[in-house]
Amino acid sequence: MKIIVQKYGGTSVADAQKIRRAARRVIKAVENGFGVVVVASARGKQTDQLIADALELNPNPPKREMDQLLSTGEQQTVSLFAMALEAMGHDAISFTGGQIRMLTDSSHTKARIKSIGAERIHKQLDKGKIVIVAGFQGIDKDENITTLGRGGSDTTAVALAAALGAEECEIYTDVDGVYTADPRIFKNAAKMDEISYNEMLEMASFGAGVMHPRSVEFGKKYDVKIHVRSSSEETEGTIITHEVPRMEGVIVSGATIQKDMAKIGLVGVDNIPGNAAKIFAHLARAKVIVDDIIQTEVSPEKANLSFVVSGSDLNAAKKAVETIKDEVNCDRIFVREDIAEVSVIGIGMRTHYGVAEKMFGALAEAKVNIDSITTSEIRISCAVDEDQAEKALNVVCAAFELDKSSQQRSKS
Amino acid sequence: MKIIVQKYGGTSVADAQKIRRAARRVIKAVENGFGVVVVASARGKQTDQLIADALELNPNPPKREMDQLLSTGEQQTVSLFAMALEAMGHDAISFTGGQIRMLTDSSHTKARIKSIGAERIHKQLDKGKIVIVAGFQGIDKDENITTLGRGGSDTTAVALAAALGAEECEIYTDVDGVYTADPRIFKNAAKMDEISYNEMLEMASFGAGVMHPRSVEFGKKYDVKIHVRSSSEETEGTIITHEVPRMEGVIVSGATIQKDMAKIGLVGVDNIPGNAAKIFAHLARAKVIVDDIIQTEVSPEKANLSFVVSGSDLNAAKKAVETIKDEVNCDRIFVREDIAEVSVIGIGMRTHYGVAEKMFGALAEAKVNIDSITTSEIRISCAVDEDQAEKALNVVCAAFELDKSSQQRSKS
Repeated sequence: MKIIVQKYGGTSVADAQKIRRAARRVIKAVENGFGVVVVASARGKQTDQLIADALELNPNPPKREMDQLLSTGEQQTVSLFAMALEAMGHDAISFTGGQIRMLTDSSHTKARIKSIGAERIHKQLDKGKIVIVAGFQGIDKDENITTLGRGGSDTTAVALAAALGAEECEIYTDVDGVYTADPRIFKNAAKMDEISYNEMLEMASFGAGVMHPRSVEFGKKYDVKIHVRSSSEETEGTIITHEVPRMEGVIVSGATIQKDMAKIGLVGVDNIPGNAAKIFAHLARAKVIVDDIIQTEVSPEKANLSFVVSGSDLNAAKKAVETIKDEVNCDRIFVREDIAEVSVIGIGMRTHYGVAEKMFGALAEAKVNIDSITTSEIRISCAVDEDQAEKALNVVCAAFELDKSSQQRSKS
Repeated sequence: MKIIVQKYGGTSVADAQKIRRAARRVIKAVENGFGVVVVASARGKQTDQLIADALELNPNPPKREMDQLLSTGEQQTVSLFAMALEAMGHDAISFTGGQIRMLTDSSHTKARIKSIGAERIHKQLDKGKIVIVAGFQGIDKDENITTLGRGGSDTTAVALAAALGAEECEIYTDVDGVYTADPRIFKNAAKMDEISYNEMLEMASFGAGVMHPRSVEFGKKYDVKIHVRSSSEETEGTIITHEVPRMEGVIVSGATIQKDMAKIGLVGVDNIPGNAAKIFAHLARAKVIVDDIIQTEVSPEKANLSFVVSGSDLNAAKKAVETIKDEVNCDRIFVREDIAEVSVIGIGMRTHYGVAEKMFGALAEAKVNIDSITTSEIRISCAVDEDQAEKALNVVCAAFELDKSSQQRSKS
């Protein structure tokens, strides 16, 4: 039997009506001959309510107990989902993470999956049952309940699809796919039919919030075809899959914007081996995620060093560099808040020239000043003033014709 | 280390304030040198809300899924309870039924406990932790979540106390103990200091709702000292324990009333062996709980047979006897609704005469007509008109001086 995994997020199962709508979709897949495994999140605002309940009793609740508490949200959804399917005349059975042996490490609130027991699910599918699995949760080797942290239910779904050898992992959400750019900013953004894992990873890491990079990484590692689609409409969404030659015909697949960033610079650091390592070790210990590191030699003895952090990490980052300042003999620290990063992403960049030129040209023409530039193999990012960021995204999108679908662009 | 089990019902943990109050009690026991294991129910109306959510999706939800759903209520309470204790500076850890290997059979919604894994709890107590266990729930051998049905959390608590060899199992509730009679009906009812398991079983089965008979049976079987007491007041409650000689000095320990009963009679049944068995087998298959069976021979060929059922079972019972009527050659079926049973209970009855006389005398004097009488070794029950039931209880209580504590009465 061909298996399909369908993941429904919290807004798609928020109330009885929405659970029934999701259940009808599941039944449709069953009628098309698939064995269906559903992964569901906690209903609507349930998790927020539980967090509020916890904080009322303890401003700093132990993480193990938080996981014990929050995992009930998904457990409720899956049993209700199974009941809905039964009421519609279909055999269904719900499982918690523990019940399908979703084994994780013991890092409560951000656990990593170690293994999945697919047997129990196969057995139920073979009996003709629809299987509903609680997303976001697992157990460690001592049967403590763990949760997977942000994007956890997506990760559960993709991991299950891999473990079960599913044809496809469908991610039902409140948008109908992945767009070339954020449609709230670039009005004419086009929905993509497909995108490679690597592009999606860059998109996700650089501001496109449709899927958490972690679940995309899982999909890439185990070659799971991921289909991001709308839970309210019947249209096809976006397929996230491995690279195929035709994808390279498109130079730029999408563009992203990341706001609320800050740049920290260390001016006049002693230019000796090990100093950069010292600085970033300090930042890592402070759990600051660092991006766009740029180091330039200003003299044989001295170097300037800068990097970008998200606004929420700025204070921790400042503290961390202040404590290391004297040790690396830094003359001065500067901070530039209110910057944004505009990025273009596309695996076609590997084989096409002139992408950077086109991007910088579009920004220059629109009089957007570029603070700094960083690149990866399939991405070019420019740091710009935050209040110029939306304009920047729009001109870049126009330059790369991101209002057209990739099919239209690869033909042209 | 001496261990104490404390059970808090839904009203005792309904909100953050009440959870904190319960937590303070727990800490007091810890400060008195006890290892404390807490058993907690779902918060206030959580279970009702979950049942409503289920029925909205499925008027007849599968029982396995109901258990999967409802068990989240207790899981939430125990994690919140542990968080509250941590906030007050005490190490605590919460467990679901599954996590402590509360193994049950697979009768969903009314599972029976088969075994308990006490090790994990002992290990945590030895580390100095307070252990919080979700009441009402277990798992079967396939890790399906089960629930124990009515009185389930009390049963969890008493069973845990037995498995752990606890000194005492404290049941915290919204009344401050077991009374000689329902104080809402007999205003001057006295709180009992102690009561034997057998008396409590008769009290519970015959209308005193403080504890479910099942948990008392567990206590009796494993000789667990049960202490029923108030969660809001500091007073001592009622100890349920094994019989001691001084208990026999009291002739009647308490009186109960059971309303909304009905009597069904089969008139002129063929008086041949096996007919009664056939009738009650039918009723058992219909899951009707039958009480007070009376059979009288009216001729060598014919017998009359009657029994009492609760109002909620009446329709099922009627249907069951209608289907067997012809087979046992019954002339006529009669039903008497709106009856109540007034009972007096006391292990002293075994060694004292005149209890029945005194009861019947009191009822006669008050002009309460007795429909039928049944007795056990330590109980006498009279079926009376429902609208005379409260008067009946009051005159019986007065006759046996149930306004006085058992200590006062045994001295007199």
